[in-house]
Amino acid sequence: MVTSRWTAAPAPTASPRRRGAVLERAILDAALEQLGTVGWNGLTMEGVAAVAQTGKAAVYRRWPSKEDLVVEALRTGLPRLDSAPDLGGVREDLVALCRTARDAMFSRPGLALRSVIHECDQSGAERFQALILEGVVEPTVRLLHEVIARGIERGEVRSGAANGYVFDAIPAMMMYRSKVCGSEWNDPDLDEMIDQLMLPLLRPDAS
Amino acid sequence: MVTSRWTAAPAPTASPRRRGAVLERAILDAALEQLGTVGWNGLTMEGVAAVAQTGKAAVYRRWPSKEDLVVEALRTGLPRLDSAPDLGGVREDLVALCRTARDAMFSRPGLALRSVIHECDQSGAERFQALILEGVVEPTVRLLHEVIARGIERGEVRSGAANGYVFDAIPAMMMYRSKVCGSEWNDPDLDEMIDQLMLPLLRPDAS
Repeated sequence: MVTSRWTAAPAPTASPRRRGAVLERAILDAALEQLGTVGWNGLTMEGVAAVAQTGKAAVYRRWPSKEDLVVEALRTGLPRLDSAPDLGGVREDLVALCRTARDAMFSRPGLALRSVIHECDQSGAERFQALILEGVVEPTVRLLHEVIARGIERGEVRSGAANGYVFDAIPAMMMYRSKVCGSEWNDPDLDEMIDQLMLPLLRPDAS
Repeated sequence: MVTSRWTAAPAPTASPRRRGAVLERAILDAALEQLGTVGWNGLTMEGVAAVAQTGKAAVYRRWPSKEDLVVEALRTGLPRLDSAPDLGGVREDLVALCRTARDAMFSRPGLALRSVIHECDQSGAERFQALILEGVVEPTVRLLHEVIARGIERGEVRSGAANGYVFDAIPAMMMYRSKVCGSEWNDPDLDEMIDQLMLPLLRPDAS
């Protein structure tokens, strides 16, 4: 029986695995690029393979469907929101946190994620909604909680302010004004939201 | 020259005009019904005519396209938000206003409007976005402004609270939790939002 080089176990060197990881990243980047240019409906596995300069089979081997590919491209591409700013004051922390969230929202993967939700059919959209929830909304709420809890400890923030409505106020306002008014949330807009909405909401009660 | 009864000027009685208005309403109701059952993509002028028990020509005579028909069905069907509650206190007024807005949001035309925005293509969606803005968002903000201005006069609300971020907080929260968490905004949810978000935001400064 002949063992061809195609069925033989790979030689125990680092090269094939490294090539695999690099190729994987190239495919995921190509998927983000295609979402930005031709959108969800225009994106094909062939198109992504061509941009990544590989074959269709190399794409299908890793991701059985276009949806799987796009979910991973977005999940691994979104900026990580995992450490809360700690600048000594609640205003500074909220401003810094809002800038990070805004940058994530308008990053290439953030914009791709939003366009995907608009374009793809309902069942697909639910999977992407979950991605927004787990990749953007929940981490942001966790960081807001941290920032507000520190403000309460410092006596800058009223003790009742650590509740779900307060944590949701910033994400709600950012989504709403972006969708309804087309706001791009530049720095002065974010400062204004903190000063006119969040600080009045958080200020301590009259003592 | 023969003047047939089809080209003759209509007899000066109320009957033909009344029939016209009644038929028009039946067509618009049929359009809302079709949006609820087959959605934007499934809705056809023929289907609407069949439900309204009339001919396709009667529909096209009034509305040249499916989009025109649906815009008018939604515009005339949405509950009117044109008078602010005046119950003597800002909490009562806000609760009443939120219930009215929630009822509009979950009315048959309100649900149809939201499903249309999900389903139809981008250019159509913009026209429906404008409808949400003019038919729901702007009237709600006007009424909130009125309620908050009366609270300031009574000394119940801080004087700086009449600003765009405060007016947008309720619509933003309602859209956000409905989209992201699937909230249906029952009465206790609305009360909680007023108590945990709006009243702390509006309370007067320490004097």
